[in-house]
Amino acid sequence: MTGIKVFAPASVGNCIVGFDTLGLALERPGDEIILTPSDRKGLRITKITGAKGRLPYEVEKNTAGLAALSVLKHLGLEDMGLDMQIHKKMPFGSGLGSSAASAVAGAFAVNMLLNNPLEKRALLPFALDGEALASGSRHADNVAPSLIGGIIFSRNENSVHRIMAPKELMATVIYPHIEILTKDSRNILSETVSLKNMVQQSANLASFIIACHNADFELMSQCMQDVVIEPQRAKLIPHFQEVKDAALAQGAFGCSISGAGPSIFALSPNTFVAENAANAMQKVFSDNKIESDLYVSRINQEGVVKC
Amino acid sequence: MTGIKVFAPASVGNCIVGFDTLGLALERPGDEIILTPSDRKGLRITKITGAKGRLPYEVEKNTAGLAALSVLKHLGLEDMGLDMQIHKKMPFGSGLGSSAASAVAGAFAVNMLLNNPLEKRALLPFALDGEALASGSRHADNVAPSLIGGIIFSRNENSVHRIMAPKELMATVIYPHIEILTKDSRNILSETVSLKNMVQQSANLASFIIACHNADFELMSQCMQDVVIEPQRAKLIPHFQEVKDAALAQGAFGCSISGAGPSIFALSPNTFVAENAANAMQKVFSDNKIESDLYVSRINQEGVVKC
Repeated sequence: MTGIKVFAPASVGNCIVGFDTLGLALERPGDEIILTPSDRKGLRITKITGAKGRLPYEVEKNTAGLAALSVLKHLGLEDMGLDMQIHKKMPFGSGLGSSAASAVAGAFAVNMLLNNPLEKRALLPFALDGEALASGSRHADNVAPSLIGGIIFSRNENSVHRIMAPKELMATVIYPHIEILTKDSRNILSETVSLKNMVQQSANLASFIIACHNADFELMSQCMQDVVIEPQRAKLIPHFQEVKDAALAQGAFGCSISGAGPSIFALSPNTFVAENAANAMQKVFSDNKIESDLYVSRINQEGVVKC
Repeated sequence: MTGIKVFAPASVGNCIVGFDTLGLALERPGDEIILTPSDRKGLRITKITGAKGRLPYEVEKNTAGLAALSVLKHLGLEDMGLDMQIHKKMPFGSGLGSSAASAVAGAFAVNMLLNNPLEKRALLPFALDGEALASGSRHADNVAPSLIGGIIFSRNENSVHRIMAPKELMATVIYPHIEILTKDSRNILSETVSLKNMVQQSANLASFIIACHNADFELMSQCMQDVVIEPQRAKLIPHFQEVKDAALAQGAFGCSISGAGPSIFALSPNTFVAENAANAMQKVFSDNKIESDLYVSRINQEGVVKC
């Protein structure tokens, strides 16, 4: 049994209209994990790069480690000797599902090394064990897309559904180099919503799913609005409104905060619009002396893969 | 030009998970309108039956009359001589879209008599003119299904979408002979919703649409829950919880208030379950000395028709 390397992609949680329930996978960035059999008993994390010293080597405190261990325990193989290297190739606290990608990569790597005793979809609860360590909850809106790709609606962890969507859809994501903690971003939210906004927000989510199914781009451009979460969180991200306006002016269907931020996500009908939106969004940050990373990506259809 | 008779079906607004946005059409009951050319200038209502004296003969104050007039005005034909008979064959204030059916029948009858200058779907705004007279708002969740049939999601009056759904779905509707005014039923609602309930309610609506598209009956049975509106309105309907429990015990996917009530609606996977649910629901009311009307119906796929 030789070692393997896997790649789990970043993802956009909430996807503008589906707070805690909707997410999509990007083609990049993402995390890599290398898993190698070892003569020493048990799972060890032997190397971490790209984490600026912020990820623990202790397996049970590390999202990738815990997810991998969770699979091993399920299979009764927790004593198996394994060395894990984690190469973070995406930013922390960016709103791009960094912890989810690590957890998915950890669970997938173990299963792959064991020649796939579990189906890919069956790895979800184990990856969620890892995700919960980082986020405190078992929401699948980042983990599920990172695992199986696509645009995913998850009612809960036992009810995960891939939304049929036009293949030409393009995601633009910009990560400004500012820091927001998911916890703060969640604490800022009001515990109540007006009935009117509830109806509109639900209608927007339902419309997005219908628009995906029917490839109805007109409906998509109308419905991609977050009337509940974005107005509360936008204030945490400097120049948010300008960045959003810049993306929409280029023809993006919608633009809002990715996950808990500070990354900003736009969905576009094609590569041309997505690239133009990307440049316009980045210009707002650069004009304001804020560095940023830019990703223009198709919707990743595979999720985590061996590489 | 001879007279014509049309039938517009009742409908179930809200459909459990889509407050103000989702509705479906029943095969019966419904309203009939007979429209006949006349030598006297203008539209007149000449006969109303089944309304217990509660519907005005004045065209502009009658939902069917106003909807018909609205079509005539649009076509520049408001002086055309027409006699309208309205035969209400469904209860008022029942939560079954009575005013919507009348408005749809009125608009459709005029268009049909004129040999269809407008497409059926294009009659929506005119039927909404009539509906707004009765309900005070232009929600299409009753009008759209009554007009074109099917399960309809309407984001707003300009964004109306038919949901693909399994043909074997069956609706059971029971109308207990008690009265609730839509206005009271709306006034009772809290103006705010918890964020948690908003997420769950949105997820249920999204799940229902996915379940319809995928004919996923397991998901349908999980998602048909109203955590926001039903808990507030149920108290207006005596024995609601028992009736609901009786329907669910027979295998209905879900059961809740139809529109603003007092009718109660259950959705079932087939005729057998729908009939059993119907009998069980009616038994609760009859055990409690409340008379009721029962309707077991496929989803009406045609909407308003000439008959």
